Amino acid sequence: MTQPFPFSAIVGQDEMKLAMILTAVDPSIGGVLVFGDRGTGKSTAVRALAALLPPITAVEGCPVNAAKPSDCPAWANITSPRTHSIPTPVVDLPLGASEDRVTGALDIERALVDGTKVFQPGLLAQANRGYLYIDEVNLLEDHIVDLLLDVAQSGENVVEREGLSIRHAARFVLVGSGNPEEGELRPQLLDRFGLSVDVTSPTDIASRVEVLRRRDAFDHDKAAFMLRWQAEDATIRDQILRARVALRELKPDEACLHDVAELCIALGSDGVRGELALLKAARAHAAWRDDTAITRSHIRAVAPLALRHRLRRDPLDDAGSGARVGRVIETVLG
Amino acid sequence: MTQPFPFSAIVGQDEMKLAMILTAVDPSIGGVLVFGDRGTGKSTAVRALAALLPPITAVEGCPVNAAKPSDCPAWANITSPRTHSIPTPVVDLPLGASEDRVTGALDIERALVDGTKVFQPGLLAQANRGYLYIDEVNLLEDHIVDLLLDVAQSGENVVEREGLSIRHAARFVLVGSGNPEEGELRPQLLDRFGLSVDVTSPTDIASRVEVLRRRDAFDHDKAAFMLRWQAEDATIRDQILRARVALRELKPDEACLHDVAELCIALGSDGVRGELALLKAARAHAAWRDDTAITRSHIRAVAPLALRHRLRRDPLDDAGSGARVGRVIETVLG
Amino acid sequence: MTQPFPFSAIVGQDEMKLAMILTAVDPSIGGVLVFGDRGTGKSTAVRALAALLPPITAVEGCPVNAAKPSDCPAWANITSPRTHSIPTPVVDLPLGASEDRVTGALDIERALVDGTKVFQPGLLAQANRGYLYIDEVNLLEDHIVDLLLDVAQSGENVVEREGLSIRHAARFVLVGSGNPEEGELRPQLLDRFGLSVDVTSPTDIASRVEVLRRRDAFDHDKAAFMLRWQAEDATIRDQILRARVALRELKPDEACLHDVAELCIALGSDGVRGELALLKAARAHAAWRDDTAITRSHIRAVAPLALRHRLRRDPLDDAGSGARVGRVIETVLG
Amino acid sequence: MTQPFPFSAIVGQDEMKLAMILTAVDPSIGGVLVFGDRGTGKSTAVRALAALLPPITAVEGCPVNAAKPSDCPAWANITSPRTHSIPTPVVDLPLGASEDRVTGALDIERALVDGTKVFQPGLLAQANRGYLYIDEVNLLEDHIVDLLLDVAQSGENVVEREGLSIRHAARFVLVGSGNPEEGELRPQLLDRFGLSVDVTSPTDIASRVEVLRRRDAFDHDKAAFMLRWQAEDATIRDQILRARVALRELKPDEACLHDVAELCIALGSDGVRGELALLKAARAHAAWRDDTAITRSHIRAVAPLALRHRLRRDPLDDAGSGARVGRVIETVLG
Amino acid sequence: MTQPFPFSAIVGQDEMKLAMILTAVDPSIGGVLVFGDRGTGKSTAVRALAALLPPITAVEGCPVNAAKPSDCPAWANITSPRTHSIPTPVVDLPLGASEDRVTGALDIERALVDGTKVFQPGLLAQANRGYLYIDEVNLLEDHIVDLLLDVAQSGENVVEREGLSIRHAARFVLVGSGNPEEGELRPQLLDRFGLSVDVTSPTDIASRVEVLRRRDAFDHDKAAFMLRWQAEDATIRDQILRARVALRELKPDEACLHDVAELCIALGSDGVRGELALLKAARAHAAWRDDTAITRSHIRAVAPLALRHRLRRDPLDDAGSGARVGRVIETVLG
Amino acid sequence: MTQPFPFSAIVGQDEMKLAMILTAVDPSIGGVLVFGDRGTGKSTAVRALAALLPPITAVEGCPVNAAKPSDCPAWANITSPRTHSIPTPVVDLPLGASEDRVTGALDIERALVDGTKVFQPGLLAQANRGYLYIDEVNLLEDHIVDLLLDVAQSGENVVEREGLSIRHAARFVLVGSGNPEEGELRPQLLDRFGLSVDVTSPTDIASRVEVLRRRDAFDHDKAAFMLRWQAEDATIRDQILRARVALRELKPDEACLHDVAELCIALGSDGVRGELALLKAARAHAAWRDDTAITRSHIRAVAPLALRHRLRRDPLDDAGSGARVGRVIETVLG
Repeated sequence: MTQPFPFSAIVGQDEMKLAMILTAVDPSIGGVLVFGDRGTGKSTAVRALAALLPPITAVEGCPVNAAKPSDCPAWANITSPRTHSIPTPVVDLPLGASEDRVTGALDIERALVDGTKVFQPGLLAQANRGYLYIDEVNLLEDHIVDLLLDVAQSGENVVEREGLSIRHAARFVLVGSGNPEEGELRPQLLDRFGLSVDVTSPTDIASRVEVLRRRDAFDHDKAAFMLRWQAEDATIRDQILRARVALRELKPDEACLHDVAELCIALGSDGVRGELALLKAARAHAAWRDDTAITRSHIRAVAPLALRHRLRRDPLDDAGSGARVGRVIETVLG
Repeated sequence: MTQPFPFSAIVGQDEMKLAMILTAVDPSIGGVLVFGDRGTGKSTAVRALAALLPPITAVEGCPVNAAKPSDCPAWANITSPRTHSIPTPVVDLPLGASEDRVTGALDIERALVDGTKVFQPGLLAQANRGYLYIDEVNLLEDHIVDLLLDVAQSGENVVEREGLSIRHAARFVLVGSGNPEEGELRPQLLDRFGLSVDVTSPTDIASRVEVLRRRDAFDHDKAAFMLRWQAEDATIRDQILRARVALRELKPDEACLHDVAELCIALGSDGVRGELALLKAARAHAAWRDDTAITRSHIRAVAPLALRHRLRRDPLDDAGSGARVGRVIETVLG
Repeated sequence: MTQPFPFSAIVGQDEMKLAMILTAVDPSIGGVLVFGDRGTGKSTAVRALAALLPPITAVEGCPVNAAKPSDCPAWANITSPRTHSIPTPVVDLPLGASEDRVTGALDIERALVDGTKVFQPGLLAQANRGYLYIDEVNLLEDHIVDLLLDVAQSGENVVEREGLSIRHAARFVLVGSGNPEEGELRPQLLDRFGLSVDVTSPTDIASRVEVLRRRDAFDHDKAAFMLRWQAEDATIRDQILRARVALRELKPDEACLHDVAELCIALGSDGVRGELALLKAARAHAAWRDDTAITRSHIRAVAPLALRHRLRRDPLDDAGSGARVGRVIETVLG
Repeated sequence: MTQPFPFSAIVGQDEMKLAMILTAVDPSIGGVLVFGDRGTGKSTAVRALAALLPPITAVEGCPVNAAKPSDCPAWANITSPRTHSIPTPVVDLPLGASEDRVTGALDIERALVDGTKVFQPGLLAQANRGYLYIDEVNLLEDHIVDLLLDVAQSGENVVEREGLSIRHAARFVLVGSGNPEEGELRPQLLDRFGLSVDVTSPTDIASRVEVLRRRDAFDHDKAAFMLRWQAEDATIRDQILRARVALRELKPDEACLHDVAELCIALGSDGVRGELALLKAARAHAAWRDDTAITRSHIRAVAPLALRHRLRRDPLDDAGSGARVGRVIETVLG
Repeated sequence: MTQPFPFSAIVGQDEMKLAMILTAVDPSIGGVLVFGDRGTGKSTAVRALAALLPPITAVEGCPVNAAKPSDCPAWANITSPRTHSIPTPVVDLPLGASEDRVTGALDIERALVDGTKVFQPGLLAQANRGYLYIDEVNLLEDHIVDLLLDVAQSGENVVEREGLSIRHAARFVLVGSGNPEEGELRPQLLDRFGLSVDVTSPTDIASRVEVLRRRDAFDHDKAAFMLRWQAEDATIRDQILRARVALRELKPDEACLHDVAELCIALGSDGVRGELALLKAARAHAAWRDDTAITRSHIRAVAPLALRHRLRRDPLDDAGSGARVGRVIETVLG
Repeated sequence: MTQPFPFSAIVGQDEMKLAMILTAVDPSIGGVLVFGDRGTGKSTAVRALAALLPPITAVEGCPVNAAKPSDCPAWANITSPRTHSIPTPVVDLPLGASEDRVTGALDIERALVDGTKVFQPGLLAQANRGYLYIDEVNLLEDHIVDLLLDVAQSGENVVEREGLSIRHAARFVLVGSGNPEEGELRPQLLDRFGLSVDVTSPTDIASRVEVLRRRDAFDHDKAAFMLRWQAEDATIRDQILRARVALRELKPDEACLHDVAELCIALGSDGVRGELALLKAARAHAAWRDDTAITRSHIRAVAPLALRHRLRRDPLDDAGSGARVGRVIETVLG
């Protein structure tokens, strides 16, 4: 494997780093979409996340990384009850991966040799309980996108073909990067991502020099550079684990639910997805900051990430959706 | 299987819930089309229906869930006369399901191994006597839509290829969800659905908070939430079963037939499909409400569901088809 | 098989019923094209015809339903000289039927197992001496339409591929339904149909109520309803058989030929197909009505059916082709 | 096989009948293109020609109907030196015939069973020394048209694929019918046909009645009708055989060559193909009329057939290419 | 094989005949493109060239006609050191030849039978050391054209697929005919041909009569006609062989190189291909004319052939590229 | 193999030669894009580079040319620890190479014979530690381009299909030639190339004559010509090796990093790729010139190569991107 750039060595890009940490705290927030021009380090950040995530416990040999044998699919014939600790799966969907390889398919080799139908799991099985990363989500073929959204929502991969009728758990955080210059994404697709962030290149020379210096140092001697940033990455990892525990005790009060609903109605966001994402992101933020209640400050901090990509385009408002979210927060939350 | 949200826990959406109950009382009404923006809970409602429906009695091993051995297709070689009780089938047509998997096809494995031609039934066989659910019916490929409509109308699946010539019963209620923003449906397709409903997000804060509270509670602890709503779902299920029996005794009188025909002529709806759907929906409504005759109030209650999607677009009438149906009901039925 | 609605229970639609009876009397008239909006009962009528037609005598086991062993194709290896009585074949061309299944093809199973080339007959063989029904002929793929027209005209199915060179009789009446709203048919295609009829929904309440009553009764208890209309259907069937015999003795006189030719010239109809269809339809009408000569009244009665679909579109004449045929009949036949 | 309508019973259409006779006298004239609206009897005439043509002598079993064993292709392994008399081949190119079936291809069955590569000849081999008929040449796929023209010009079929490298004689007269309403033919394609004729429906009642009477009689009792026209067809056949012998002695004199060249230059026809076709058609006409020299009257009679389809479209001349040929003949030949 | 028309019996067309002779003298000039309307004898001339070319010496059994065993590709396993004299290969690329047949491919038969991968050479191997003729080069599919140009330039055929990685020499003169009426050729394609010629029909009656007389004589008695022109063809063949030897001693002097470069710069021709083609054509012309040095007269004679097709289109200059080359020659060479 | 033209014998084209030398000194600069009209010697130069590059040390039998056994992929089963010296790989991507051949694929032969899945490496494996050359990069299919860019950036080839899940190192310098006349390249594609150069034909007669003389000499006697230029090529090769060593000691100082960042901000170039390419190219240039520090003169010399192709098109600035880079260098670096 190629060594990714350390997460904590990324210069700036605080919003993107926050979004990724929040979904690591509560994966049910539902995916991050990273917008940005080419060369702004989108895929660097996503690949850095892989090295940062805490390990999970999984049944040995289970194709969907299940935590206990009873969660493994029947077709996998898992007999061993032993579990082991593995890195959180971060599965990369390569450009041009076939639908077969994504969903899994009949094992042709076995079918030809034994005449038996055996299911060979695909990338969706590998990604269970982890992350599925799609670089340039706008270049993906439509039928693959539809399939991924379908699975991401239901948490289940259903394969109905070649005489197979297979289901297995496929719960993962979808992380996609996209370049708005290369074509818009469908509103339906946008709505399925929990959070979105914009990333841009820094424009001050000091930051640029720092970026350049770190990249050149990384390219020149990877081992030395990783050693330098190891501690910072470990700190973040520990804090994510603490926040996951804290999360269970954080229940929204009436005022919090009211704020979330009012904010969404004021922004004209359709449906319950935006409200749920906002509520969960605020809770994850509170847990990450070690606070014991969800307050307006948490809602305010994550509302742009949770709502910006769900607004309808307003042709009379040049300021962009980020500014509109800001104004409405000001009005509703004071 | 992932646990669906309980039917009775859905906030509001009364029209949609009514339409689904009516087709459960009389499946020959012919399918429900659910229109709505993204995030309005369309698929949540349809999946909830699955848990609500009363069980059916079916021959063991019969690929089309037939009620008695003589109704099983000859090619299935059913020898056991035993029946058992199974849940009403609710078959989900996954995006990207191949035509083979929908209609059934030659069992290639058997053909290669034994040199015999055996038919392997598909989703249409599974859906017999139940529901076939298509999420985003407007994204389905045209040839699959044509095939489904053909089967839904004739109640029979005909497979003529690969040297096979197979027929089997395929009577099901087609339930489709669609987003009008993502392209119109062909009038021909609309006409084949018995009923249609529009769903929208609630816009008052109290409802939104309630929706949010219930969804968050469901996500947080599914088991507890299901227990809370079990009784409400059981009540609806029992009432459906009572209505199915009552239905047999409800015959339309002359005035009722006249009202139905006059309403359809006044609305300019072509063909007999609208009239039959309206008549049957009014009857099912009377049965569901435990009334002993079909009256104008029943017709009035279901006419928008049965007729709204069959009107030709009137460019001079901005009010939309719902309002037109309302005005005509006012005029015709007083 | 699903039970079709009885032919004689169809309310109104006299022109369509006449056209179908005439082609039953003389199949060489050459096909009926049924135009109409959705829901006007087009396919109901065609499927009803199947139950109405008189049986034919065919060699047992003959793939093309030949009347005597010497008419069976050599490749079928028919050795038994026995014949039996079978229903007139009414073959339904399902949407999406492959070209292989239509024309017949190499039996792959036999080719793989025995290494011998055996022809497996298709729908065109089944339809010989009967009817081939295409619902929504305008949705059929062009290459299948071309193939059907070619066979319908020559009365012979020629299969030249996969190393096969097979011919067999394929004489059938092509019945197609089409919806003019869903795209025009090519003039070349129109000209190949002997007769055409338009069907529309009745617009008076009494007829609509009657249609609704009968459809609801049929849906409610099919067996009782069929019993009610059995006698009417039998009467029509007997009269068709009588007319077939009478037909042989009905020769056109000079005046009749002259009328037919003058009418076609006056209407600017190209080619001999319209004239032949008109002559044969008039003769079948005379036979059906038990008349002993073909008169102007017979020509007048069937001329709109035989000619309406062959006129070139006249942009200066809004009245439509039906009215133009009427005016010309008035002028030519007085 | 279905019985074609007798050639001599065709009413009118003298130009078309002449063109077909001339190519029967001298096949090297190179093909006839028959233009006409639907229903004008184009394919009737071509199929009638099949029954009219004199038989040929061919080696038994030879796939290309060669006259003597040394002309059979080596790959056919013809060992018997016996010849027999067979009808002039008239091969019908069915719509949708695959390229494999047209050119011939590897015999897959033999390849699979024996592991040997054996060539299975196609329609081009069958048509050698005869006629290849294409109904609706403008509906044929472009790559098949290009292939046919290539072979028609070189007189040789070259198959280079699937590891085969096969050549065999494929000399035939290409007869195509086309409907100018359904799209123009490429000039390159037009130029490859030796002669062209337009056919139209007769517009006088007497002819139309006669056409109708004969078609109805033919449909009514084929055997009686064929008997009636047998002698006329035989007379034409004998005269074609006599003309073929006379042809060998008819050499053009200098004046004749000069007339042909001057006519073509005056018409602006490119290339030598028009001149050769005109020269050969004039010679065939002289032979058919039993004349002993080629005179201006022969050239005048066939010039429209040989040249009309080779003219460039002149947008200032509404009269059509037929009239232009006529005017130039008048000027050049006096 | 069909007998081609003799090269020396072609009436006129001197420029085309010169271009073909020059590439026979020095094949490295690089291909001839023959432009002309249909019927101007383009393919007649190219096929005539085949009969004219001197034989070559090749290793027996070598798939690329190599002159000595060490030049045969290793994969061909040539063990015999014997050579024989064979006609210069003139390979005809048939319309519709598959890419496999052009480049060569895995021998499927051997792969299935022995499980060994054996390369089966294609038309490019056959054409090595000879000519590859493409009739109607503008009708060829783009990917085949790109492939041919790639090979023609590198002199090597590289096959990378189906697990094969094969290279072999493929040096040939590409001869293409094209009809400018049927679509332009890409400038990139034009630039790859060494020489180009336009051919047109003669417009004087005497030439046309002579063309007609010779074609008719050839069609009438091929054997007699070939005998008549045998000596003329032999003379040209001998002179080509002499010129090939003379070529080796003809070195351009400084003035000659300067003239060639100045001419190309004045014409604005990009790149070195035009200069090299002009230099080599001038040298071949000198050798063909038995001159002992390359002079301005040689450059002047071949410059239009080598440069005309490389000019950029000048919208202000109606005279065409031929005239522009002429004017520039006048200015530069005086 | 065909002998390439010697690198040092190329007349002029200094910028292109410099770019190629710089990527030979530091391959991490990341690829060269060569723009130019047809015939300007683009592919000649790239092919010349192959003969110039110093050899590398690689494990015997390793499919990715790894330097030591532990770097060979596990699936290759390399057991021998021996290394040998091989030429730097320069892999040519032939037009029409299939995706399978590029990425590697399942070895079908082995799969059929043994029933085992073995990976057969493709061109990307061959190119590891070397060069991958694509002639006419703008003619490549989009999905192949996307795949190449993906691999070129990650340095790893990931194959996920046919039941394979294979990864191997694939670090190479991508060299592409393109003709701006034949369609623009996507900005995303441009940004992935480290350097770009424009090449044009020389327009002075002396240079053209020299080009012509050398090409003609090379075509005439390759062996003699190669001998003449051997020493020049060897000198360049040695200097590249020396520069590679020197490179390790050349660290940018603060001023250098500041200059690079300021230059890129002033030019509005997005992202860090341009800055990294510029920094590395300046360092490689210093090493090539044997200088001991990276100075402004090095940055100035390579800035046009590193930045020109990354500018956004400025519609108000006709001078082209080259001139804009020049002006900004002037302003920023003085």
